[in-house]
Amino acid sequence: MYERKYTSDIGADDVGKKVLLYGWVHEVRDLGGVVFVLLRDREGIIQLTCPKKRNPEITKRARKVRRESVVRVVGEVKEEPKAPGGYEVLPDEFEVLNEADAPLPLDVAEKVPAELDTRLDARFLDLRKPRIQAIFRIRHQMLQSVRDFLTSEGFIEVNTPKIVSTATEGGTELFPISYFEREAFLNQSPQLYKQVLMGAGFEKVFEIGPIFRAEEHNTVRHLNEAISIDIEQSFTDHEGVMKVLERLINRVYTDVVEKCEKYLNWAGVKLEIPEIPFQRVTYDEAVEIIKKRGEEISWGEDFSTPALKLLAEEFDSHYYIVDWPTEIKPFYAMPYENEPEISKTFDLMAGSLELASGAQRIHLPDLLEKMISQKGLNPESFEFYLSAFRYGMPPHAGWGLGADRLLMSILKLKNIREAVIFPRDRTRLTP
Amino acid sequence: MYERKYTSDIGADDVGKKVLLYGWVHEVRDLGGVVFVLLRDREGIIQLTCPKKRNPEITKRARKVRRESVVRVVGEVKEEPKAPGGYEVLPDEFEVLNEADAPLPLDVAEKVPAELDTRLDARFLDLRKPRIQAIFRIRHQMLQSVRDFLTSEGFIEVNTPKIVSTATEGGTELFPISYFEREAFLNQSPQLYKQVLMGAGFEKVFEIGPIFRAEEHNTVRHLNEAISIDIEQSFTDHEGVMKVLERLINRVYTDVVEKCEKYLNWAGVKLEIPEIPFQRVTYDEAVEIIKKRGEEISWGEDFSTPALKLLAEEFDSHYYIVDWPTEIKPFYAMPYENEPEISKTFDLMAGSLELASGAQRIHLPDLLEKMISQKGLNPESFEFYLSAFRYGMPPHAGWGLGADRLLMSILKLKNIREAVIFPRDRTRLTP
Repeated sequence: MYERKYTSDIGADDVGKKVLLYGWVHEVRDLGGVVFVLLRDREGIIQLTCPKKRNPEITKRARKVRRESVVRVVGEVKEEPKAPGGYEVLPDEFEVLNEADAPLPLDVAEKVPAELDTRLDARFLDLRKPRIQAIFRIRHQMLQSVRDFLTSEGFIEVNTPKIVSTATEGGTELFPISYFEREAFLNQSPQLYKQVLMGAGFEKVFEIGPIFRAEEHNTVRHLNEAISIDIEQSFTDHEGVMKVLERLINRVYTDVVEKCEKYLNWAGVKLEIPEIPFQRVTYDEAVEIIKKRGEEISWGEDFSTPALKLLAEEFDSHYYIVDWPTEIKPFYAMPYENEPEISKTFDLMAGSLELASGAQRIHLPDLLEKMISQKGLNPESFEFYLSAFRYGMPPHAGWGLGADRLLMSILKLKNIREAVIFPRDRTRLTP
Repeated sequence: MYERKYTSDIGADDVGKKVLLYGWVHEVRDLGGVVFVLLRDREGIIQLTCPKKRNPEITKRARKVRRESVVRVVGEVKEEPKAPGGYEVLPDEFEVLNEADAPLPLDVAEKVPAELDTRLDARFLDLRKPRIQAIFRIRHQMLQSVRDFLTSEGFIEVNTPKIVSTATEGGTELFPISYFEREAFLNQSPQLYKQVLMGAGFEKVFEIGPIFRAEEHNTVRHLNEAISIDIEQSFTDHEGVMKVLERLINRVYTDVVEKCEKYLNWAGVKLEIPEIPFQRVTYDEAVEIIKKRGEEISWGEDFSTPALKLLAEEFDSHYYIVDWPTEIKPFYAMPYENEPEISKTFDLMAGSLELASGAQRIHLPDLLEKMISQKGLNPESFEFYLSAFRYGMPPHAGWGLGADRLLMSILKLKNIREAVIFPRDRTRLTP
């Protein structure tokens, strides 16, 4: 019995020894007296060299095997400068564990480019491409780094319910569920729950989990199911959690550069670690910049995509837009005491892409109830939330950061669907 | 400006110095010339001593402050053997940041015990109890340990969709969603997706995320929304993933014992680390044991709760029930080649509680399609899944482990609702 090796682990120490490999048939080249098979596994590709004179049965099997079939190989390692990676394996066992059908619905070797929709339809094949695998290896590291960083900062991981009875922020962008005989909804965000946990004395929490938004529009930046990275922290304000956020972004980039060199190469991406602190622009200043660059905008409006593109020309890498009009931010955003039409809010931008949004929250129950009413919402439907403010709610602040968008911006992906294994949008529910 | 300290961090080094504290008013004792306030934060409790002669205004404020109000305190640390923890703080600043209403809907100091339903209704107060906080501090460690262990074993974290168009295992235990103009469902388990990812060449994946089951019954072991820890691994069988599972359980216990001593004390729990390998009993042997202990059961039936209780009397700690009848396991479980009425399946039990369930999976598309039909399901509705088996699906195995149940069993909680911050059951949709 041999222990299984990944193709990338084969090196000088293995020369002259036998190794056990598992993987997929990436390519077959038949030269008559010898058949070359490129074997691909999760970590790389190695050449199997099958000369007829070594084992005619194996050579015959290698010649016949269809691309993308799954095989088990035991063979001897030799140095071979002409082979990819510098080594080849001469099989003594070559077993086809599962033969692939032909023709393949998608070309894994990427000789034929395919449309994103075709790729997503056959995602199980699309994901076999090293370039695409790399995206999800880096995603793994990104999520690990986020958790390690937040844990080291004293944040406690929590899981809040995804089935809820009330909209988080009002509005109609909700998916209704039949919950036994009642109606319920898929949660848009853990916002209300992470705030309640400040009332519960957790002081610092984070959650990484799905959020659901029934938005009708179908853009390259929006999904209807996404993964959100959320934090909430007591006894601090928006300034405090902005510092946490920029250090987190810096840490993720640093870790990805240090630990994912191979996958960055597969993905064809070179990263620059963004410097902190990030630049800042106030909403007022942003409006002026956008106007000066020729786009019409009135104070109090949210920024359109063209406006954000103009703004992005002014900044390298990441920057914060701070101090938004209270009216266009959610009811829980804290207004400035001396200028209540402005709120203690921020968006984190990567170029023209909004990565995160946060604020100091209102912790005073009377003000909060007033703001809910002012937004045209009914305080009664927020009773479970409001009650947590009446018995000792600390001042607190937090943010939500889109995990898929963060990955999209790190890897400079053109469509957020590339950052998600099985994306869900207006029209796509499968696979 | 002082940097904020947790109460538990106050020690000999602070004596004679000033510290900044934030927290909740746990108790107030008014002795006339001096008022004692117990200040509670996330990490513990400290005594604030407010003598009238030091600062009459602060003593007055401390006397009047309502329990569970949020305060900010700056004061001098003194040694005081009679105070809890051995230190007291003499406040020079005492600011009430948010005054709590009275009476409190629940007693945080736990002098009055409350029913679970009352507690869950006022969960934000219930969670302030150190005993309850401890549960979620240990949960954080448990999830970190699971991820660290799986990452160190080469598993890649993935996120699969929670909104799906097909039931995972057939059956009717699904929550329907209105997905724009179509019907969709909340996913019961990531099973089909993690298998497709084996077809995608990920080889080892894990996911920790919500699962949704529209089960009508309402027991102390079931929730309608739960967190599931799922793995899937290629080029291995049920034996391989059982070894991963038992090492994971062992690692979680070891980490909790090493890193959560304080919270285990708060929770009043002493842990024994379960020894591995876990004992095993075949389904056939289990049937015999149950019969011998006087419960009626026929071969091919699933085990009832009373039957599992009888079985648990035979085993200490954790054990596996292996080799289940193929008929009572899902369609994707691999039957033994030489005895197809038995399957390569296992359940992991902690006493009479089922923690995890797993199997070698069927990787051969024809057999899989046959099994789907045999279960009375329509292979056409599994097309996105079946297609992944036709173009090179490796042999694979995996399991699903209930995170809430794992925590329940570690901390010996009587009701799974205790292991979840905001549980969702047949009747509970709030908070």
